[in-house]
Amino acid sequence: MKALQYRRIGAPPEVVTVPDPEPGPGQVLLKVTAAGVCHSDIAVMSWPAEGFPYELPLTLGHEGAGTVEALGAGVSGLNEGDAVVVYGPWGCGTCAKCAEGKENYCLRAAELGIFPPGLGTPGAMAEYLLVDDARHLVPIDGLDPVATVPLTDAGLTPYHAVKRALPRLVPGSTAVVIGTGGLGHVAVQLLRAMSAARVIALDVSEEKLALARTVGAHETVLSDAQAVGKVRELTGGTGAQAVFDFVGAEPTVRTAGAVAAVEGEISIVGIGGGSLPVGFGALPFEVSVNAPYWGSRGELIEVIGLARTGAVAVHTETYSLDEAPLAYERLHAGQVNGRAVVVPHG
Amino acid sequence: MKALQYRRIGAPPEVVTVPDPEPGPGQVLLKVTAAGVCHSDIAVMSWPAEGFPYELPLTLGHEGAGTVEALGAGVSGLNEGDAVVVYGPWGCGTCAKCAEGKENYCLRAAELGIFPPGLGTPGAMAEYLLVDDARHLVPIDGLDPVATVPLTDAGLTPYHAVKRALPRLVPGSTAVVIGTGGLGHVAVQLLRAMSAARVIALDVSEEKLALARTVGAHETVLSDAQAVGKVRELTGGTGAQAVFDFVGAEPTVRTAGAVAAVEGEISIVGIGGGSLPVGFGALPFEVSVNAPYWGSRGELIEVIGLARTGAVAVHTETYSLDEAPLAYERLHAGQVNGRAVVVPHG
Amino acid sequence: MKALQYRRIGAPPEVVTVPDPEPGPGQVLLKVTAAGVCHSDIAVMSWPAEGFPYELPLTLGHEGAGTVEALGAGVSGLNEGDAVVVYGPWGCGTCAKCAEGKENYCLRAAELGIFPPGLGTPGAMAEYLLVDDARHLVPIDGLDPVATVPLTDAGLTPYHAVKRALPRLVPGSTAVVIGTGGLGHVAVQLLRAMSAARVIALDVSEEKLALARTVGAHETVLSDAQAVGKVRELTGGTGAQAVFDFVGAEPTVRTAGAVAAVEGEISIVGIGGGSLPVGFGALPFEVSVNAPYWGSRGELIEVIGLARTGAVAVHTETYSLDEAPLAYERLHAGQVNGRAVVVPHG
Amino acid sequence: MKALQYRRIGAPPEVVTVPDPEPGPGQVLLKVTAAGVCHSDIAVMSWPAEGFPYELPLTLGHEGAGTVEALGAGVSGLNEGDAVVVYGPWGCGTCAKCAEGKENYCLRAAELGIFPPGLGTPGAMAEYLLVDDARHLVPIDGLDPVATVPLTDAGLTPYHAVKRALPRLVPGSTAVVIGTGGLGHVAVQLLRAMSAARVIALDVSEEKLALARTVGAHETVLSDAQAVGKVRELTGGTGAQAVFDFVGAEPTVRTAGAVAAVEGEISIVGIGGGSLPVGFGALPFEVSVNAPYWGSRGELIEVIGLARTGAVAVHTETYSLDEAPLAYERLHAGQVNGRAVVVPHG
Repeated sequence: MKALQYRRIGAPPEVVTVPDPEPGPGQVLLKVTAAGVCHSDIAVMSWPAEGFPYELPLTLGHEGAGTVEALGAGVSGLNEGDAVVVYGPWGCGTCAKCAEGKENYCLRAAELGIFPPGLGTPGAMAEYLLVDDARHLVPIDGLDPVATVPLTDAGLTPYHAVKRALPRLVPGSTAVVIGTGGLGHVAVQLLRAMSAARVIALDVSEEKLALARTVGAHETVLSDAQAVGKVRELTGGTGAQAVFDFVGAEPTVRTAGAVAAVEGEISIVGIGGGSLPVGFGALPFEVSVNAPYWGSRGELIEVIGLARTGAVAVHTETYSLDEAPLAYERLHAGQVNGRAVVVPHG
Repeated sequence: MKALQYRRIGAPPEVVTVPDPEPGPGQVLLKVTAAGVCHSDIAVMSWPAEGFPYELPLTLGHEGAGTVEALGAGVSGLNEGDAVVVYGPWGCGTCAKCAEGKENYCLRAAELGIFPPGLGTPGAMAEYLLVDDARHLVPIDGLDPVATVPLTDAGLTPYHAVKRALPRLVPGSTAVVIGTGGLGHVAVQLLRAMSAARVIALDVSEEKLALARTVGAHETVLSDAQAVGKVRELTGGTGAQAVFDFVGAEPTVRTAGAVAAVEGEISIVGIGGGSLPVGFGALPFEVSVNAPYWGSRGELIEVIGLARTGAVAVHTETYSLDEAPLAYERLHAGQVNGRAVVVPHG
Repeated sequence: MKALQYRRIGAPPEVVTVPDPEPGPGQVLLKVTAAGVCHSDIAVMSWPAEGFPYELPLTLGHEGAGTVEALGAGVSGLNEGDAVVVYGPWGCGTCAKCAEGKENYCLRAAELGIFPPGLGTPGAMAEYLLVDDARHLVPIDGLDPVATVPLTDAGLTPYHAVKRALPRLVPGSTAVVIGTGGLGHVAVQLLRAMSAARVIALDVSEEKLALARTVGAHETVLSDAQAVGKVRELTGGTGAQAVFDFVGAEPTVRTAGAVAAVEGEISIVGIGGGSLPVGFGALPFEVSVNAPYWGSRGELIEVIGLARTGAVAVHTETYSLDEAPLAYERLHAGQVNGRAVVVPHG
Repeated sequence: MKALQYRRIGAPPEVVTVPDPEPGPGQVLLKVTAAGVCHSDIAVMSWPAEGFPYELPLTLGHEGAGTVEALGAGVSGLNEGDAVVVYGPWGCGTCAKCAEGKENYCLRAAELGIFPPGLGTPGAMAEYLLVDDARHLVPIDGLDPVATVPLTDAGLTPYHAVKRALPRLVPGSTAVVIGTGGLGHVAVQLLRAMSAARVIALDVSEEKLALARTVGAHETVLSDAQAVGKVRELTGGTGAQAVFDFVGAEPTVRTAGAVAAVEGEISIVGIGGGSLPVGFGALPFEVSVNAPYWGSRGELIEVIGLARTGAVAVHTETYSLDEAPLAYERLHAGQVNGRAVVVPHG
């Protein structure tokens, strides 16, 4: 079959022909219907050879959707043709974290050499995808796989952060979303669908802020030197009960700290390399700061449930598998509008 | 001043003249701007003399809004003219429940002889209302007191029940509202504003169901012999993760039990005299059943916060204080459309 | 191999020889080190033929411990010889409940014909036990399997109920345990280890109450007509914030309702056929009543974690597999002191 | 009456005679039975004149116990002679935080000029203490005021931090306490009483570690360069689910970050000036870091509830009011064993 692989450090990914995968005991073979192109792949492909964590060549694609093509021995509860998306952060399935569906925080993945598809294990940028266990699959029958596949990461990651903050987001409270691109854009929709909080979006261009308003932000603030003052003013001086930073660079984490309210929560989701110091007097009283990673299996089921209500939508543009290298090029150049999705059997 | 009083058991309430109240130390005198007419007053006025819990005459009105007219000695943090609503379920202010703002569940109210205004203490159906402590007041500057006053009971009571159920109302879940009158009608709005759950409303007339759809119910089901089957079908057999029964009669609590999902929650808010038996095998696994009463101080602040966003609105019709007996008559006769509100200084 | 089977409705279980099981793909074969004898097996064996839910013959034993004897194809993360206990309430592993480890509430088990070992699937009362998936196993290396195996049901079931109530069991609160036999006895220990609540135990004999004191109950009350008054007195009139009824008969659920505090929680764990009516005025304000079933995978891991600290201990008496029918006889006759455990390779 | 006052910047506190206070409307006058000597007073007395936040002279003492001497007009629910402790972090009583009893996080205290006793308002180091509102008082009848008064700060502050972390402190988890002095010493006791977590205490001297073991620490680790490795080893590599840093200096917050587990929580309670940077990759996944301040009214009630069970005890040494300056000297010099308590009417 054809697959998009990252083959040499620093080189662009290539479409190559690889052996067709066969499902072993307990495994499921998917015919891929959609695979999301993610910024973090570009980050991976920028890492140096030394310390590179995965074996090469690596078939890319950690956001995957497909239909069940074949079941390995011993698999039950699924039928050929079932439409599914893949929960990406695979774990051991049995440790204390996995037992609660938090395979993203598996305590044994490193020890057992378990990697997510596209991030160590062959990914979804191929005609077929081998899934290690039926538990990684969430049914999406009736949903468009192209529109749905970005929810497995670009939806699940902000969903987890937003869900964590919900007890604070009572009516009368404020949520600030910093960075309204791929994930932030979804976060605004999630906040509107799941809470009565006022949503203030911050970004560096008026164009992005216009988009944030379109998807539901009550207020938008240009992320400049006046931004903190404006958010404080919009909140009557109190600040925001929840702040989501989808950039995670030094200036944005500082902004996050400066707009948070007493007992507020800051989730630094972006991997921009910034960090926010916490200590007595450093932030308003009992502001809690965390940096989460992806989400749980149960949360992915909930995100798909939300997609069924129509409350969350990701703008996508599609590419064939042969065009996948172009999709990464365009993403790298900032030319992708929304989320690029590869459709291998288009 | 003029006040509407319930004076003799079984007789209709009358407008009478009573001495103007004066605020003692720690008290606040309000000029009443709005007072809500509530079904439970009619229930109170139907109770027999034997065991009647309050002294007569009793000035009615447990939903009150006003402006600060005078401050008793030692009161700070408020100014004359401030627009406020009154938190009704007064408690001692110091016990373990009151320390968390749950004065509705005060552990010492009975012992200390503390009663809510309009339910033992002189209520808001008067030109002026004496409030025992500034902590019972929530600012509503900029909001219409007539539209806002019903939120102190008809808003706060369903708000408390809905907030309690929110952790179960994840995307993909279902909430069932039984009885879409005064409180149920608000509950539908609260559920839509605060969660992504699908809302199914049940009532006995198509007219009420049409109203439920107008305020946001996704689905409506006529509350007849087929209702349970229809809700099960709409939920793919799973049932509802939260059920709110604003009727509380035998048939409705049975319906509530029959439509609940495994691990679901049923709040019986209505005082219709029904009760639902819970025991192993009586309901789906771990369905939790409770019967709450009113809400906390913090929750009233949140309800007012929600009113500011425009996400909750109660249809009202207004009456002068002289017309207040008529308002009760019409309510009793089922002729009030939405909530009747008395405006003493209209 | 030898196995204890329930073969004919109404007949006592028999030790018979059955084919040695072989692990298929994804399965794990255990050499059984201990199997718990449970009251619910006796209930099962008292059911009539009509509507009997399981196929006969049925190998009994839903509490099982063993060492890994052989791994089916595709199983990883386990090694031969690993000491484990079995999580009993098997589910599909992929639905919304199973994704959070709540396989006891699997949404698809009935549809897919999935049954727990010993309750539909061949159980642990045999020399070997076939386990459908490695995720059902929790490591117990270093713990005594005989002492530990009762924790998979008689430990996990009260653990789930107690954990659910912990947020209410703040210092100064009271927990009431009704029925201090197998599960109640463990509940007292769990409450002492996991909370600072005062524990009041109720039972019908002074002998059982003495045992309850030995394992940590602060107070014991004979379960007679004065019991409710005594609990109220011991709690200064307030009642108990959590009540666990391990009997679940009509008189005990009535007692549970009568001793509960405002906002308290009642878990009816016993399957004695009683049910407690909930409705406005039926119980103190907002008492929440539920009837749970078993517990989650994550909770079993926690129970085993607690066993490692020595904070929970179950008195056991052991039987060989050939003596297993006697164990059931003695249990039925009320002659078992603590928990009877069968050791097939003794 | 006599009072201990801080009168000039940089000078030691002095015992002086001040006018006897009289309770105004809503106020309560206490005859002081005990007043705690706290490290933070020494910090306050080290601050420079510029920017000093309180008016001088300032009667010290933010930990206070007493008996009700006189009630101001309008105060009910209390009787002369009642034994009480004072909740210190006074707030407005009406804002959203105060409505939930979190007066420590009052949104209006600064605006309204509200200060805690001993920290802006005349404190408890005097023969009599004027309390602004009856809600600040928690009954302690039957408890020793000297033993109990430190719980209002040295008990409440760690209690709040520990309670916040309890959902993570399931059986099998680990809590690390850094700094086992006044507050840390209490934290070890709270953790043992309220959870089944393993408690590891870190401090810089073997003598302090011996004390930590005496009050319940399961393990103690000398806080040197090997400490992080030892904690990791004790936890099987996983780290601690909750870390409480009662020092809060740069080295201790770094240790806190290094011993935390995935999804763990770090509370930096000490005011040692350190801060811990949080960002993607800076700490294990989703470690949450916060710096809390004191606790809520409801939590103080719970702490007193815990004291009644005997589960928490603070070693104290007593001083007369005339000896109070000596108590501060000895505390400053590190010569106080446990908590120094001033008894004005000894």
